[in-house]
Amino acid sequence: MFVKNSWYCAGWDYELSQGKEALLTRRIAGEELVLYRKPDGSVVAMEDRCCHRQAPLSLGKKEGDALRCMYHGLKFGPDGKCVEIPGQENIPPQACVRTFPVVEKNNWIWVWMGDPEKADPDLICFSVGPGDRNWNIKTSKVRVNANYRLEIANLMDLSHVTWVHEHTFGGTDAYTYADAKHTLTKRGVNSKFWLRGVPAPVFAQHLFPQGALFDLRFDVEMTIPCNFVLHFQVWTPGSATDDGEPTGQMILDSYASQAITPRDEDSVDYYYAWGSSVATDGPGMSDMLHETITTAFIEDKEMLEAQHQRMKERPNKKMIEIVHDAAPGKLLWVLDKLLKDEASEAAQAPELAAS
Amino acid sequence: MFVKNSWYCAGWDYELSQGKEALLTRRIAGEELVLYRKPDGSVVAMEDRCCHRQAPLSLGKKEGDALRCMYHGLKFGPDGKCVEIPGQENIPPQACVRTFPVVEKNNWIWVWMGDPEKADPDLICFSVGPGDRNWNIKTSKVRVNANYRLEIANLMDLSHVTWVHEHTFGGTDAYTYADAKHTLTKRGVNSKFWLRGVPAPVFAQHLFPQGALFDLRFDVEMTIPCNFVLHFQVWTPGSATDDGEPTGQMILDSYASQAITPRDEDSVDYYYAWGSSVATDGPGMSDMLHETITTAFIEDKEMLEAQHQRMKERPNKKMIEIVHDAAPGKLLWVLDKLLKDEASEAAQAPELAAS
Amino acid sequence: MFVKNSWYCAGWDYELSQGKEALLTRRIAGEELVLYRKPDGSVVAMEDRCCHRQAPLSLGKKEGDALRCMYHGLKFGPDGKCVEIPGQENIPPQACVRTFPVVEKNNWIWVWMGDPEKADPDLICFSVGPGDRNWNIKTSKVRVNANYRLEIANLMDLSHVTWVHEHTFGGTDAYTYADAKHTLTKRGVNSKFWLRGVPAPVFAQHLFPQGALFDLRFDVEMTIPCNFVLHFQVWTPGSATDDGEPTGQMILDSYASQAITPRDEDSVDYYYAWGSSVATDGPGMSDMLHETITTAFIEDKEMLEAQHQRMKERPNKKMIEIVHDAAPGKLLWVLDKLLKDEASEAAQAPELAAS
Repeated sequence: MFVKNSWYCAGWDYELSQGKEALLTRRIAGEELVLYRKPDGSVVAMEDRCCHRQAPLSLGKKEGDALRCMYHGLKFGPDGKCVEIPGQENIPPQACVRTFPVVEKNNWIWVWMGDPEKADPDLICFSVGPGDRNWNIKTSKVRVNANYRLEIANLMDLSHVTWVHEHTFGGTDAYTYADAKHTLTKRGVNSKFWLRGVPAPVFAQHLFPQGALFDLRFDVEMTIPCNFVLHFQVWTPGSATDDGEPTGQMILDSYASQAITPRDEDSVDYYYAWGSSVATDGPGMSDMLHETITTAFIEDKEMLEAQHQRMKERPNKKMIEIVHDAAPGKLLWVLDKLLKDEASEAAQAPELAAS
Repeated sequence: MFVKNSWYCAGWDYELSQGKEALLTRRIAGEELVLYRKPDGSVVAMEDRCCHRQAPLSLGKKEGDALRCMYHGLKFGPDGKCVEIPGQENIPPQACVRTFPVVEKNNWIWVWMGDPEKADPDLICFSVGPGDRNWNIKTSKVRVNANYRLEIANLMDLSHVTWVHEHTFGGTDAYTYADAKHTLTKRGVNSKFWLRGVPAPVFAQHLFPQGALFDLRFDVEMTIPCNFVLHFQVWTPGSATDDGEPTGQMILDSYASQAITPRDEDSVDYYYAWGSSVATDGPGMSDMLHETITTAFIEDKEMLEAQHQRMKERPNKKMIEIVHDAAPGKLLWVLDKLLKDEASEAAQAPELAAS
Repeated sequence: MFVKNSWYCAGWDYELSQGKEALLTRRIAGEELVLYRKPDGSVVAMEDRCCHRQAPLSLGKKEGDALRCMYHGLKFGPDGKCVEIPGQENIPPQACVRTFPVVEKNNWIWVWMGDPEKADPDLICFSVGPGDRNWNIKTSKVRVNANYRLEIANLMDLSHVTWVHEHTFGGTDAYTYADAKHTLTKRGVNSKFWLRGVPAPVFAQHLFPQGALFDLRFDVEMTIPCNFVLHFQVWTPGSATDDGEPTGQMILDSYASQAITPRDEDSVDYYYAWGSSVATDGPGMSDMLHETITTAFIEDKEMLEAQHQRMKERPNKKMIEIVHDAAPGKLLWVLDKLLKDEASEAAQAPELAAS
């Protein structure tokens, strides 16, 4: 079950060149897509199946703005309408392929999987990509073979950092006791909290004298389906305040932007970026952050894939709730409400929904 | 869904020696078969499961005309009747394994998967194998993980040559405009057409002066399930006539014989041969033809397997028809009629059908 | 379908060290287990899924007697009760993981998969492991991708030795004509027979003069699910008697102990041991026995996995019975009776059964 009226990340902009052969394939929310860049630089996202016999258009060829199926030569304009059927004059009106609204923003390619009329670019979440001159951001991606709801629960509850990431981001159990403020937003949750007087994360402890302590500031914007943007700062100890601005010295100012796109019920494509502000960067810092986040996401991947298998073995097993389920619960509530709203709209206008 | 009362190709005759250990396994139309050659040279096709506990007889041993199961030693004659149960005297009459009529013709082994009473060798399609002294034929085979109906549609509509085979058989879009004459036969379709004044196929263009043109003559006999025999000739330009014999000079006379055997709903075994007549052959010609057809069938394989996946994802998706669907449509009509006839016979005589 | 109230072998004791990281995972009768050894040496078997969100506890960490889930840090005592939920004071009573009774005996670890109240160590079958000082036993294991009922039928009917093991244990068809006495036991079958005046098994024929004959004595204790213990002796020819003790000279006295644990409906873990008595051992003998049994079980594996595939293709195919099905039939009867008894108990007390 996926929210259709939503922007889903289809990858980094640099993954899709203007080259003649450059076709990108993606499975997003159960749909097979092919993406290509037009000569004017804008991106087209099309269903990756010809309207004739479902041959993948991604085995086809770009011709200017258009895409030609290389099975029988049908050619489709960027609006999905067939403009040529070799061997016949008449092109029936139903000879068209579904296209999807696309927006590029902050180096991410976003695709709207629902009703094009409702595709509002203002719904795209804020993020910080490698093209931002104020931040030294490095990017990567990973496939995780787990349902995206498990990713939501993972990202909304940072208490797991202590355990899953004990060799990377961890080094303190303060995450477990963080007094986070979770605020519902229209399509997500905002979480803010400080960890006060804690050691540096394991990956960075070699940079500081033994026993050095810090205040860590977290500001998470999470939007469905599963976009996580973390403004993360390291401050000298005692800097934290509850409401106003911190009082001490900032050591690191960084942005982690992560877009988790459900491919289907059993896998996600995870696009991620992390880096420090130009002002707080130092030699090798961004490389270290990138190396660490990559290692950490493999730690998550191992846990989530194993959990996903266990969930599939016993889908109806009763499970207990703990205090850390509050934030994931909020986000899943937003998600389920949107799913329910769409289901109810579809029931009222079944023809529209099927199109 | 497979037509049972039909001859299916089980491979090339040279794949099955008379060696003591020579057992060939095949999945044909959903049945598991073991084939072996008797000392007299004739071929036996048997269900590849012992009547005792379904152990595969292909793990067994040839003993003269018979096949012994190597789990408990039951021995079966070439008619499938059990002739020995080690440890007991009595052999119950139901101790037998299903056998299938076999005919070898034109170097192909053909197996009849339906009612043995109806197995008429005259229903075996004409073909030209490597044993024919008038033709220099080379052979090969490939597994394609797609439903056999997609193969039918592919082979009956050569307009795909322009697109799928643009780097091998293609080089002209004349296939798209070919004015083929399709004639229904009892269990298939015959198609005849000329391509006039076209360049040599891409794979052979280096053999001729730039701009050289030819008339290409096609005569296709297609029989269900999916046997394709193409008499293909290359003539000097202007040779083509609509009805009578060509008037110019023949440059190449060749036969392509292809037997596509459905293994199950998701895969086929594709046995193919191509070669020129002895009269029109030249040094290296047959090797070049064989190399080219092998490359071309991998092009088809890539397209058909991808299409098969797309079809399985959206089995009920509405698709449009184009002008080139006429010939595949005719052959699928023949196939569906045979399927319907068999289903109706089975409904009238359920016991016979089950046996 | 598995008998729940039964001891299942989970492996050799030496597979589970007391190391800090030593966690053993097993799938037994459809359940996922994690096993670990406490500091006092005793073994804990726990369901391998946290009660919170089903994360595998086998990705966790041993802490003394306890096991900590490394997703959110929940800690479970050896009785499965949660003893810590980091971040919250209250531990709800339902925060617990199922544990299973464990007994180590004859170097095997045995787990009771049913009602712990009924776990009677006296039901564990006799066997001879590598720790027994009177026997020189070597051990190993193999995964077989077949249903365990096929293993029962295989082991209870040694007539298959002639055929499946013609290159290892075979060398005579006397197995086919063995006059075995099969006696029902409470949870299994006992089989005793002699093979008189037969050649040595193929694997040992090089040790004796050509034409040398022997009397072979078999005493098999088979208990469900599929534990096979064979007391196997080789005697000089003419030694065999029907009732009393043999009269000649014993050449080899050996024990083969085999525990076949169903993982699920499609696979088993096969733990096996074979070796001679200290009194009848000689240089290299135990190595040869171990090498041979390993080869032979790969012969079985090939046959059973192929048979399993055939059975799945045609689950309802009618099969004939032969004389050698008598002993397997007896054991399957015991098994089916226990399955039926458990199903009927579960129907009478559904809540207990579900727990």
